[in-house]
Amino acid sequence: MYQVQQQFMTASERLLHTLPDPLPLWRGGVLSPVTLAYETWGTLSPACDNVVLVLHALTGDSHAAGGSSTEYPKGGWWEPLIGPGRAFDTDRYYVICSNVLGGCQGSTGPASVNPETGTPYGIDFPVVTVQDMVRAQRELLSSLGIRRLAAVAGGSIGGMQALEWVVRYPDDVDAALLFGASERIGPQAIAFNSIGRDAIRLDPAWKDGRYEPGEGPTGGLALARMIGMVTYQSQQSMWLRFGRELASRPTTTSPLGEKFDVEGYLEYQGRSLVRRFDANSYLYLTRAMDLYDVAEGWESEEEALARVKARTLHVGISTDWLYPPEDVRALAEKLRAAGSDARYAQIESVHGHDAFLKEWDVMTSTIRGYLDGGGDGLPGINAEARLPVTRPA
Amino acid sequence: MYQVQQQFMTASERLLHTLPDPLPLWRGGVLSPVTLAYETWGTLSPACDNVVLVLHALTGDSHAAGGSSTEYPKGGWWEPLIGPGRAFDTDRYYVICSNVLGGCQGSTGPASVNPETGTPYGIDFPVVTVQDMVRAQRELLSSLGIRRLAAVAGGSIGGMQALEWVVRYPDDVDAALLFGASERIGPQAIAFNSIGRDAIRLDPAWKDGRYEPGEGPTGGLALARMIGMVTYQSQQSMWLRFGRELASRPTTTSPLGEKFDVEGYLEYQGRSLVRRFDANSYLYLTRAMDLYDVAEGWESEEEALARVKARTLHVGISTDWLYPPEDVRALAEKLRAAGSDARYAQIESVHGHDAFLKEWDVMTSTIRGYLDGGGDGLPGINAEARLPVTRPA
Repeated sequence: MYQVQQQFMTASERLLHTLPDPLPLWRGGVLSPVTLAYETWGTLSPACDNVVLVLHALTGDSHAAGGSSTEYPKGGWWEPLIGPGRAFDTDRYYVICSNVLGGCQGSTGPASVNPETGTPYGIDFPVVTVQDMVRAQRELLSSLGIRRLAAVAGGSIGGMQALEWVVRYPDDVDAALLFGASERIGPQAIAFNSIGRDAIRLDPAWKDGRYEPGEGPTGGLALARMIGMVTYQSQQSMWLRFGRELASRPTTTSPLGEKFDVEGYLEYQGRSLVRRFDANSYLYLTRAMDLYDVAEGWESEEEALARVKARTLHVGISTDWLYPPEDVRALAEKLRAAGSDARYAQIESVHGHDAFLKEWDVMTSTIRGYLDGGGDGLPGINAEARLPVTRPA
Repeated sequence: MYQVQQQFMTASERLLHTLPDPLPLWRGGVLSPVTLAYETWGTLSPACDNVVLVLHALTGDSHAAGGSSTEYPKGGWWEPLIGPGRAFDTDRYYVICSNVLGGCQGSTGPASVNPETGTPYGIDFPVVTVQDMVRAQRELLSSLGIRRLAAVAGGSIGGMQALEWVVRYPDDVDAALLFGASERIGPQAIAFNSIGRDAIRLDPAWKDGRYEPGEGPTGGLALARMIGMVTYQSQQSMWLRFGRELASRPTTTSPLGEKFDVEGYLEYQGRSLVRRFDANSYLYLTRAMDLYDVAEGWESEEEALARVKARTLHVGISTDWLYPPEDVRALAEKLRAAGSDARYAQIESVHGHDAFLKEWDVMTSTIRGYLDGGGDGLPGINAEARLPVTRPA
């Protein structure tokens, strides 16, 4: 096992690991084989006690850091937060990020070959849940000899996974950092996910999910992405960035005349995702987001939350309407009521939900303050929004 | 002319009027012939001084009132507000509502036959604007012998038309009542409209806008409607109405398992619109909403607003995120700064933008208070949200 660990200590490129056993699924059935793609940064300590698992959002992947490349022209999705001297300091922590189960960037998902048929699963892929994603992550870590996490951290559905980690495996995690994430989403967010899925299915190239690789429903997936992109931003940020300016870049032609800048931007974002993402994965992952409810499988939400032993930081974003800050705060309050050391902090940002992928200064000070000082002081955070600190006995 | 008026005095069904002259369009070109469908309630006074023009929202039509029927199982869209003793009291007012130019419920629009080709215009229909809609309405009223309006009233794009009425024709209107409407929409609202249009165009049945009547892009139009329906509601109202309940009504099958109630609801709403609305009209009317800017054609916004002579009431809705109440209030404040008797009132409602089609009690008291008392007192309105009353000299 030690040799396996060594193999990854300095790796910065994507690695693949196939779980040794079939994975029983939360909603029934078993998936086998299950491969997870992952990347690591930093060095695993001899005691294996410096591991930070970072968890990507809906269309993210294992490349949380590691620099830019042709595939990742902008570098990793948390690039400014992971590295020597950064918030997740790789001189100190061994940081690992895996592509989720159901994804399409190396991990087993609908585009993977179904061993029973020799063709891609497509919509024969089973429904996967946040619970399954987390279980697969834990199996991966076990295979790497890692039994305990110094921290789990993620935003959006990544934050939901962080929550599931500390509820399901309370003895395995010291701290959890959740950004723009709550214990379940509401009907408005479900509605937008559902409409995005309908857009994919409306595209005749979807072919009931049985499209050939590379010939998927690009128009439908682009449309789903455009809906998503609006929900990740805010009224304010869109006014600041686009206003009512007309598009300067060329856009697709329309009988309705010139387009607004925001329309050209959305088209660009739609085209960009299509180049790197599988439409069926989008169906399954948004569905996993809809389905997640921390209480599922427990007697009650209280029972679920009372299991948590890790200290947790819940970061709401002032203009987030996909995971409204009041919902993020409410989760922190419920955890405190259940006896946890849960803290709430709020990032004041115009960027909406996306702030956890944009506000690097406050993200850095927040994470560093929490990991180093337990949250007392938390530089850069609106002090008024913080809950009073009362540590559990 | 008097005879023509008589003809409509007691009519409650849809009437058609073809304008005597071709209609020059705001963005260039001329449209001819132009027919508007309209309905009226009440009796025109001998002095023609009791006319209220009500203006429908995006997918509305001339049937603002007049009771239920097979075509209108729920009656008119402002049914509880129009009638004897109601807010728009037909014992006193002569109320008229016409389907907008570009619409598909009797007025000339993309589904109308292009006299040059003998086939429906489709996407050869010219771009129409709020300015064109209002000009066509004025031509219709002139044909009916009506030169002056006691009031114009509308919500959403109907409220934008009311604003355009008092800016463009300041001597023709005594009072304007705008609900959930501002002088232009922002990039987030444009984005949702644009994505809805993309959904229509993604549907292969759209056929570049040249589909046969009755064979249009039902899937794409339904999707556009579903997006719209989310923007007309609020986080709160969707939590209250749907929560995370599973659908009890049958929905379309999905490989992703059972659906949430909100998904079934949206499917139902999509299917409902498709039965009564033309997809190309949806393209043109949402575009008109995007394009409207009260300042267009004037030196400045200030010049435009300084033209207004009518007293105006601007009603914001506390949970409206399509036309946020702060935008509605800002317009009232700008009009006051320009010397108008403009007032702001806010409806506290969970219903989001749709509140002007749902909150009948407060709508009734608001409209009645404003028409009868000039707004002093305005029963049912959050007093704090009202601007101080200072009448222009």
